[in-house]
Amino acid sequence: MNIQDRLSRLRRELKRKNVGAMLVAQPENRYYLSGFSGSDGYLFVSQREAVLATDFRYIEQAKIEAPDYRLVQIKQRLDWLDEITGRTRRLGFEEGFVTFAWQRHLAEALKKTRPRLQLVPFDSIVEKLRLIKEPAEIAIIRRAADMTRKAFEYAGKIMEAGMTELRLAWLVESFLRENGSQAVPFEVICASGPNAALPHARPSERQIKAGEPVIVDIGAKLEYYCSDMTRTLCIGEPDDTYKKVHDTVRRAREAAVSAVRENATGGEVDRAARRVIEKTGYGDDFGHGLGHGVGLAVHEAPRLGPGSRDRLKNGMVFTIEPGIYLTAWGGVRIEDDVLLENGKASVI
Amino acid sequence: MNIQDRLSRLRRELKRKNVGAMLVAQPENRYYLSGFSGSDGYLFVSQREAVLATDFRYIEQAKIEAPDYRLVQIKQRLDWLDEITGRTRRLGFEEGFVTFAWQRHLAEALKKTRPRLQLVPFDSIVEKLRLIKEPAEIAIIRRAADMTRKAFEYAGKIMEAGMTELRLAWLVESFLRENGSQAVPFEVICASGPNAALPHARPSERQIKAGEPVIVDIGAKLEYYCSDMTRTLCIGEPDDTYKKVHDTVRRAREAAVSAVRENATGGEVDRAARRVIEKTGYGDDFGHGLGHGVGLAVHEAPRLGPGSRDRLKNGMVFTIEPGIYLTAWGGVRIEDDVLLENGKASVI
Repeated sequence: MNIQDRLSRLRRELKRKNVGAMLVAQPENRYYLSGFSGSDGYLFVSQREAVLATDFRYIEQAKIEAPDYRLVQIKQRLDWLDEITGRTRRLGFEEGFVTFAWQRHLAEALKKTRPRLQLVPFDSIVEKLRLIKEPAEIAIIRRAADMTRKAFEYAGKIMEAGMTELRLAWLVESFLRENGSQAVPFEVICASGPNAALPHARPSERQIKAGEPVIVDIGAKLEYYCSDMTRTLCIGEPDDTYKKVHDTVRRAREAAVSAVRENATGGEVDRAARRVIEKTGYGDDFGHGLGHGVGLAVHEAPRLGPGSRDRLKNGMVFTIEPGIYLTAWGGVRIEDDVLLENGKASVI
Repeated sequence: MNIQDRLSRLRRELKRKNVGAMLVAQPENRYYLSGFSGSDGYLFVSQREAVLATDFRYIEQAKIEAPDYRLVQIKQRLDWLDEITGRTRRLGFEEGFVTFAWQRHLAEALKKTRPRLQLVPFDSIVEKLRLIKEPAEIAIIRRAADMTRKAFEYAGKIMEAGMTELRLAWLVESFLRENGSQAVPFEVICASGPNAALPHARPSERQIKAGEPVIVDIGAKLEYYCSDMTRTLCIGEPDDTYKKVHDTVRRAREAAVSAVRENATGGEVDRAARRVIEKTGYGDDFGHGLGHGVGLAVHEAPRLGPGSRDRLKNGMVFTIEPGIYLTAWGGVRIEDDVLLENGKASVI
């Protein structure tokens, strides 16, 4: 984790935006820029300073995790900020993370003590720095993806007719955790038969039957990085619909992987997958976007979906997850995490 | 779940605040007012209307879970809102939940289509409705607390010298999940020896030794309601510090329970516990508040802590969790969920 390099890139952005300093509170952004993994705290980054402010609960942890930062202990709500803003005139903050109330209270407090300081809302400045993954980050995501593949193998082995979705979901989650996943980055999706027609179904007490599709959508989390993958499984012999739908989704996935190249947009790659699905007459049954970036967050930039202008670049890691959902019957989704390298996508 | 009664109480508040309608997006508030448990959607509540707006993923679920609401499917970002605001002049929103960006985008969109509509930030209007629990809510929390007590018994049985904190944490979490807890409402805390000196330590690879304190802080979640409890365990014979500290914390807990009465403030009850701890010379080592409300959220109002003016009322459920933390040695915390009924606290 090269914190100094990440800080330099942030500082370049701050200069470009003519902002003296920035407050970073969003947990993944905070971790990315400092290495600090506590659940509460702020980074204050200016051209000269890199300060981590947190309360007594996390000071010891912060010393170990964020040696590149000067530590400040938060006692009274905003006193620490008052002390370090110095001559800052414009202070950036993460408008997509902080609450309306947080900004309002900060603005009111600063009006009294720093009347000339201006708060500047930033959209996703640190998120953009996180877009291109370093080799060390890719290596961790690859380990998380490997673990996820093992979990699918395990699911295939233990799944049996009569097992409830909730039971299968829990066994798969246990497998991931027992094998070293820090957490599951999102609630396990395990949707069988008609439930698989809902892209975000929650596991239920429904018993899985032979021959029907079972969508299993899971992720692992290692060293704060996520994987996010989906397989559609089946006990015994699948019906004809399954075969046709699964084959279509598989071909859509391949078309999407082939369409990925440096500087392609997220919309173009989505279209490549969607075209395959449209040709088999299921165009209306692929009701979500093709994919999204994955890294410290399980959903992050870039976005791959209809109309997305996000440009894909070497070093980005994102999901490719076409699906077809048929009311009453069920659905099929296949999702992999891919890395764009040397101008091409490779499954990670 | 008496949705109509909850809506009436909200409508009374809206009238008092001279606001025509309110948007509710915070998940626990949304569930409380509608029964809808999906992860995305808005309630729009006016004197006449109760509308639930959500996207295609959750429409079927919403029909079943929120029969008291008129459903609107979200297609384009804010079109649905445009259609239902009608003659609303002042529209409330949850300023402690929505992001600064969300409010800004909404304000800009409304300026064009509804230039006379004013957005009014609300602090915790629905949270206040949630303060007094109905008998059915108390019954669920009681079941969650019972399950948590069983998990402590289990932890006491399986814990052995040499087991890592992470392993114990995972086994306890598995026990809760296997026994029907929907999720764990917060990451299990399992802190042994010196790690127990940090009130919010994360489980580590440290091996638990005989004779030292092991703080286990866990919760169960049933039908969306949480419990939150802590025990400090020990393998074999505890040392003298443990005995003295544990006895002090136990007495502080009892003093706090006895001090609870209708209309006492959160500050008064905190003081009752703190006085016991101060008398034994550990006043500086109880570095957090005494407790907090528990319900749909694991941390909610009221607050029990130094200076809190929150008035305790019959029907409130909150934690009482004094602790003493000694650097290098460890700590002891005991936490129970109590119900204020008939003017007295009873452990739930």
